[in-house]
Amino acid sequence: MFESAEIGHQLGKKAYKKAEPLLRQALLEAQFAMLANRHHAVVVLVNGVDGAGKGETVNLFNEWMDPRHIRTEAFAAPTTTLPAEEQRGRPAMWRFWQVLPPKGHVGILFGNWYTEPIVHHALGQDTKARFQAQLEEIRAFERMLVAEGVLLVKLWFHMTRDGVRQRLKALEKDPKTAWRVTPADWERLERYGPFIQASAKALRKTSTGEAPWLVIDGSDPNYRAITAGNYLLSYLQRAGLPPTATPHHAAPQPPAPLDGRSLMDSFDYQRQLSRKDYDNELERLQGRMNVLLRSPAMQKRSLVLVFEGMDAAGKGSTIRRITQAMDARHYRVVPIAAPNEAERAQPYLWRFWRYLPKWQHTVIFDRSWYGRVLVERVEGFCSEHAWTRAYDEINAFEEQQTQAGALVVKFWLAITPEEQLKRFEDRQITPHKAYKITPEDWRNRDKWPQYALAVDDMIDRTSTDIAPWHVVACNDKHWSRVEVLRLLCQRLEAVVGEGTGAKISSKKASNA
Amino acid sequence: MFESAEIGHQLGKKAYKKAEPLLRQALLEAQFAMLANRHHAVVVLVNGVDGAGKGETVNLFNEWMDPRHIRTEAFAAPTTTLPAEEQRGRPAMWRFWQVLPPKGHVGILFGNWYTEPIVHHALGQDTKARFQAQLEEIRAFERMLVAEGVLLVKLWFHMTRDGVRQRLKALEKDPKTAWRVTPADWERLERYGPFIQASAKALRKTSTGEAPWLVIDGSDPNYRAITAGNYLLSYLQRAGLPPTATPHHAAPQPPAPLDGRSLMDSFDYQRQLSRKDYDNELERLQGRMNVLLRSPAMQKRSLVLVFEGMDAAGKGSTIRRITQAMDARHYRVVPIAAPNEAERAQPYLWRFWRYLPKWQHTVIFDRSWYGRVLVERVEGFCSEHAWTRAYDEINAFEEQQTQAGALVVKFWLAITPEEQLKRFEDRQITPHKAYKITPEDWRNRDKWPQYALAVDDMIDRTSTDIAPWHVVACNDKHWSRVEVLRLLCQRLEAVVGEGTGAKISSKKASNA
Repeated sequence: MFESAEIGHQLGKKAYKKAEPLLRQALLEAQFAMLANRHHAVVVLVNGVDGAGKGETVNLFNEWMDPRHIRTEAFAAPTTTLPAEEQRGRPAMWRFWQVLPPKGHVGILFGNWYTEPIVHHALGQDTKARFQAQLEEIRAFERMLVAEGVLLVKLWFHMTRDGVRQRLKALEKDPKTAWRVTPADWERLERYGPFIQASAKALRKTSTGEAPWLVIDGSDPNYRAITAGNYLLSYLQRAGLPPTATPHHAAPQPPAPLDGRSLMDSFDYQRQLSRKDYDNELERLQGRMNVLLRSPAMQKRSLVLVFEGMDAAGKGSTIRRITQAMDARHYRVVPIAAPNEAERAQPYLWRFWRYLPKWQHTVIFDRSWYGRVLVERVEGFCSEHAWTRAYDEINAFEEQQTQAGALVVKFWLAITPEEQLKRFEDRQITPHKAYKITPEDWRNRDKWPQYALAVDDMIDRTSTDIAPWHVVACNDKHWSRVEVLRLLCQRLEAVVGEGTGAKISSKKASNA
Repeated sequence: MFESAEIGHQLGKKAYKKAEPLLRQALLEAQFAMLANRHHAVVVLVNGVDGAGKGETVNLFNEWMDPRHIRTEAFAAPTTTLPAEEQRGRPAMWRFWQVLPPKGHVGILFGNWYTEPIVHHALGQDTKARFQAQLEEIRAFERMLVAEGVLLVKLWFHMTRDGVRQRLKALEKDPKTAWRVTPADWERLERYGPFIQASAKALRKTSTGEAPWLVIDGSDPNYRAITAGNYLLSYLQRAGLPPTATPHHAAPQPPAPLDGRSLMDSFDYQRQLSRKDYDNELERLQGRMNVLLRSPAMQKRSLVLVFEGMDAAGKGSTIRRITQAMDARHYRVVPIAAPNEAERAQPYLWRFWRYLPKWQHTVIFDRSWYGRVLVERVEGFCSEHAWTRAYDEINAFEEQQTQAGALVVKFWLAITPEEQLKRFEDRQITPHKAYKITPEDWRNRDKWPQYALAVDDMIDRTSTDIAPWHVVACNDKHWSRVEVLRLLCQRLEAVVGEGTGAKISSKKASNA
């Protein structure tokens, strides 16, 4: 992996002095063009051997370009802007999502998603299988970023073991620089072999067509600076242009069922609950949920609730029945509507990553990331390419949440078209509900069959062992609210385990 | 994953009788159009619950279409056309590569790369980590197939546990069909739970945007037949059309080194060996290699040698010095030139997969799969998209060979441009060598700098821990032939281990 970076590339002082001002000018021009056009974001990953010029190059980049539109982050270094406490319970990738630059901007990640996997594997803290799995996750993550319009500039600064040793000795020899050499530097040199081995594997596995690594010989400062700068320039220039087209062999989409029947038709919408039973059950289950949430088993867990359903299915009122029994300091309801400008400048999942709860917290999504395979698919708000790959990306997203300790509970609130019509009409004639009904609701209603197909596909492809869908028939609001609470308690109980008290009756009441 | 396939879809006899002849006609038309245009191959994967109609559907497909252009393969079944002996030492995917249909054709794989991973995991024979790794390999493999123009129709036939039980009981009850039910069927029903769990995970992980699964309710024969047929039809129709274009954010290519220096310049081309030393060393090393190849440690290993180099670098003559000391029954030299028509109708790596050796055998590639990132890249014979993803695909290919027990040894035979010129001129004036020099050789020579850059990239990105490149300076043929043999013996010794006799002198003679 490092062969051609070990032959001692050099650039003379004169050549550097000639190249540098031209490069600066070109970088600035490209930076402003990409800012004006906002087609792409550029993320620069800076990795490599310590002492091979990572820090110096990042400083040069900030000097050469307009730093107002660059965000430089150094993860795993003491200067990190995100307190460790905030990161507890969040998936490992969460902190990187927080600092992704919007379209038009440049982000420099100095220490990033490669740092920990490589170091842990080199130190023998992670097994080969774990390392392999991490690299696969990175591949999938980067593929998604590129598909969402993020250009990845992956710079690896290389230096031979002898090169590092000579550099440290030279620094120590000069009284003015001796302070820069610490015992940790010599210790790292001891581990050069395993570090380079782990790095070579990481580079091999993640040097893909869409996001290759550039290995830069770091031994000569002039050479590495202009090489890295030129490469960055080529990306900035590309980022100012719209995406180009390549031949693509799109898979035909799954057909609608021949018999016109969908999952939504298959539920029993007749169930009801009397007012009295409703009041009793609601109170009992709310109390139960509250106890479960405060159990010791939930100390290192978080709860993510997702509510989806046709308009007027009762998402808001159901959510209120849940939050009534929660401590306001520990939950947050996030209503999801069309993305705003800042959200459109980011990869699709970005706005949901922002809200992931830390330990002991609950986030309730009133509509969610499933918008991509529901409204965006049906209304054509995104390309077919975008929503067809979304199922896979969503499953990976929920898997990461689960791995970080989140319990992900997803509800589809199902109503019949007839019931929806009744509720729409009721809203129109009831003054305090009139604000809830818009022409858009009627337009969506016209596309009921397309939505039904999209819902079937969504449930088939994202109801997983780690995060199953619970489909609840909601024609009767009493019955459905109690049912949602009952299912939620059931999922919580599975986490909390046996030893925590009487179980909720396990009568099969779910439709899912 | 199976929710919408469990609601009991049905298609009445009348509707079936109306749909079937139309579907047949459309399938035939689409089949002939794709055969005429040869844009794509179609591979149909047939998986699912036993008894849910897999075999019946495959039979229908063969009945409905022209079976001359369909190849149906049932792997892991006694009817497999590939003897087990042939598969020993070949990577697990080898047998599937053997039956990939060429462009224009349809291949039906009934039992395929999903079968073993799912069954082994369900039976607890494979760990979760191994299962996960296999699914990741499948994702990469299928992505490559799709990028190479293969459309994947992934059909999953589903049936509930109760559905399977009722079917078996019904079959047993009727004297005419009772013979079809074996004890194995009832045993499989016992394992329905773990099987479905493993399957759901496999489907979740491999239902990608470019190759999604279609889950088909298998309980009603009419419904499943027309559903599967319609879906296949949509693929055949797509296969008759050229690839469509989607927005793509191609990464800029790595730049040429600023100082114009390449790996190729960095070697010591001055080494020489006298005729006498050459004769002695050659004989000694040939004998050594022969002993090593016949050692017990090589009984379950194979050897893959790759020779690449500029024209006139001496590939042919070096290879002859190796084969002189081999048993003709155990080696094969495969010269690689431009692909022929049959090879162009297949994914790029197909023609190399064909030649992979079984245990105790050696295959020597005189040029190889590296053509894609050398001549095809430089001459523009393939798209940028194709060669940029090739590094990753090649690394995965060699990893699979290694995992199957192959020792992969790759040589780049390096000469200087001056030496090449001397050899070209010598060939022109020597009658028995004149056939070796063509106008194309001179044209390639004009592109020396582009080739040098391509070689550097190739070595950087494909010299891996599992299959490193050995670069040998070949200006002196005596020295280089001995050096190649020495390196080869060194690699063989590493496999054979310590206890097998005196080591070859370990003087550092390699340039790599």
